[in-house]
Amino acid sequence: MSGGPTAEPDFAEIPLSSATVAIVGLGLMGGSLALALRQSRACGQVLGIARREETIAEALARRVVDLGTTSLEEGLSQADVAVLAVPVRAIIGMIPVAGALMRPGRLLLDLGSTKREIVEAMNRLPGQVQALGGHPMCGKESSGLEAADLTLYRGAPFALVPLPRTTEHSLALARDLARAVGAQPLIVEAAQHDRLVAAISHLPYLLAASLVATAQEVAEDDGRVWQLAASGFRDTSRLAASDVRMMLDILMTNQAAIDEMIRRAQANLSTLRALISARDEVALQELLSALRQQREPMFGKGKA
Amino acid sequence: MSGGPTAEPDFAEIPLSSATVAIVGLGLMGGSLALALRQSRACGQVLGIARREETIAEALARRVVDLGTTSLEEGLSQADVAVLAVPVRAIIGMIPVAGALMRPGRLLLDLGSTKREIVEAMNRLPGQVQALGGHPMCGKESSGLEAADLTLYRGAPFALVPLPRTTEHSLALARDLARAVGAQPLIVEAAQHDRLVAAISHLPYLLAASLVATAQEVAEDDGRVWQLAASGFRDTSRLAASDVRMMLDILMTNQAAIDEMIRRAQANLSTLRALISARDEVALQELLSALRQQREPMFGKGKA
Repeated sequence: MSGGPTAEPDFAEIPLSSATVAIVGLGLMGGSLALALRQSRACGQVLGIARREETIAEALARRVVDLGTTSLEEGLSQADVAVLAVPVRAIIGMIPVAGALMRPGRLLLDLGSTKREIVEAMNRLPGQVQALGGHPMCGKESSGLEAADLTLYRGAPFALVPLPRTTEHSLALARDLARAVGAQPLIVEAAQHDRLVAAISHLPYLLAASLVATAQEVAEDDGRVWQLAASGFRDTSRLAASDVRMMLDILMTNQAAIDEMIRRAQANLSTLRALISARDEVALQELLSALRQQREPMFGKGKA
Repeated sequence: MSGGPTAEPDFAEIPLSSATVAIVGLGLMGGSLALALRQSRACGQVLGIARREETIAEALARRVVDLGTTSLEEGLSQADVAVLAVPVRAIIGMIPVAGALMRPGRLLLDLGSTKREIVEAMNRLPGQVQALGGHPMCGKESSGLEAADLTLYRGAPFALVPLPRTTEHSLALARDLARAVGAQPLIVEAAQHDRLVAAISHLPYLLAASLVATAQEVAEDDGRVWQLAASGFRDTSRLAASDVRMMLDILMTNQAAIDEMIRRAQANLSTLRALISARDEVALQELLSALRQQREPMFGKGKA
């Protein structure tokens, strides 16, 4: 099935509209991307690559993809754009394999939640491989192809991390792909990306986990704590239901920034605790009102 | 407008279905209770009491209440059941006033978010006043009558805190009222209530506040942190948009339990930080999987 490089147009001439986009991993992120790309008719065809035959069969039956294969070699050799939609450390392991299988000048993109180690692995690829890092800021707690959602990427920020080698055309392709699924591309450098997402994505997960751990400690005295828990607890603890394997990869590839953010959050909690103990209502009012206002422009004050 | 005590039936004979329920405070909680009580036709009439004429006019125009007054004296003297739906410290200040204005044997109930100090104030009332503490576990970040929502109480746990004086009939009336608006009554002792809600309601608020504070520190270096923030940040930080006056009352009347919960959450964050720094993936996997499972029976793993 693999085509030879002869008689093909120069890669720079292939727009997204005629490109074969191969998606490696048909879970929530990859499956949703495939659905949205097919719906938008933004690319030539969507080729799904998954480990299990049943996943491919389901993806074909649900028309999530145009073509499917369990063979990385068969799939990646046909790709004009390959998107790695697997957990971070699986991406890191797959980058050299993909680099060896893809045709010269084709674009390798990933959807991993941390970028520094992934971009380092991409930088080690042979020069003829085009690549850049990507991170769509969306997701939900359910995982797998059955949770795939056509609208998942709509309105989501989509971080793009160009490498020194990334051409203007490759960056434009990635931007077009992000916009085709309704996301908003945002260019950011890898280490800075990892620090920003440590604050707004990884810290929220760990705060949610620490909330559940605290409630569980109280539940050991009085199980009614779970009966009383309502929407406020549900929303604040929601991220604790995230896929643990995915989160472990994130925690293990962003340790320093996450350590910084946990320490900052603990210090902020200590400030609040000290003001409450001191009954310093003036300072509390000022601080809590400022925090309320800082969040407001993003989400509005009444958004649930 | 106030009726004399002569020729009236004994209070023990008045069921909710013929009772005049006076609601003091027509904000989110009081307004939503009034709407749901009227919709369910569970009581004789709903009488709204608010400080401002405009609030009463709006409540009457929107048919949130059957009757309305800005006079506590006029309203409470007619009440068979009076519900104090104002911030915690306003409730505490209002309890002796209500006790003096209500007819003997009528029931005083409140909706305050902490219960120990409120129940202490109720215990100081003259013996002929029936009273018990209440706390419906629902709410949202928007406040005021315009945010009132017929469905707010549906499915919500509704903590009821009986006093030594509370009769079976009074408790039954409060239970009927909770059920009439779709809530689930749950009897709990005041100090224990305050410890449980410190874990599942007040701590989530403070974690949300510390998250926004941390993101704001990072935003001072790079404002793109707000551009990248997505649904995970939105949900985990949602409670930081809560009404500050309401939260200050809660923090000031539940200091000891809140202090305990902040310290527990900080210790749990330290545990997570130590495991991440040590790259102890086995222990992390075990802990995070356990926390994911502890939360699951309450809300399901895929609930957004």
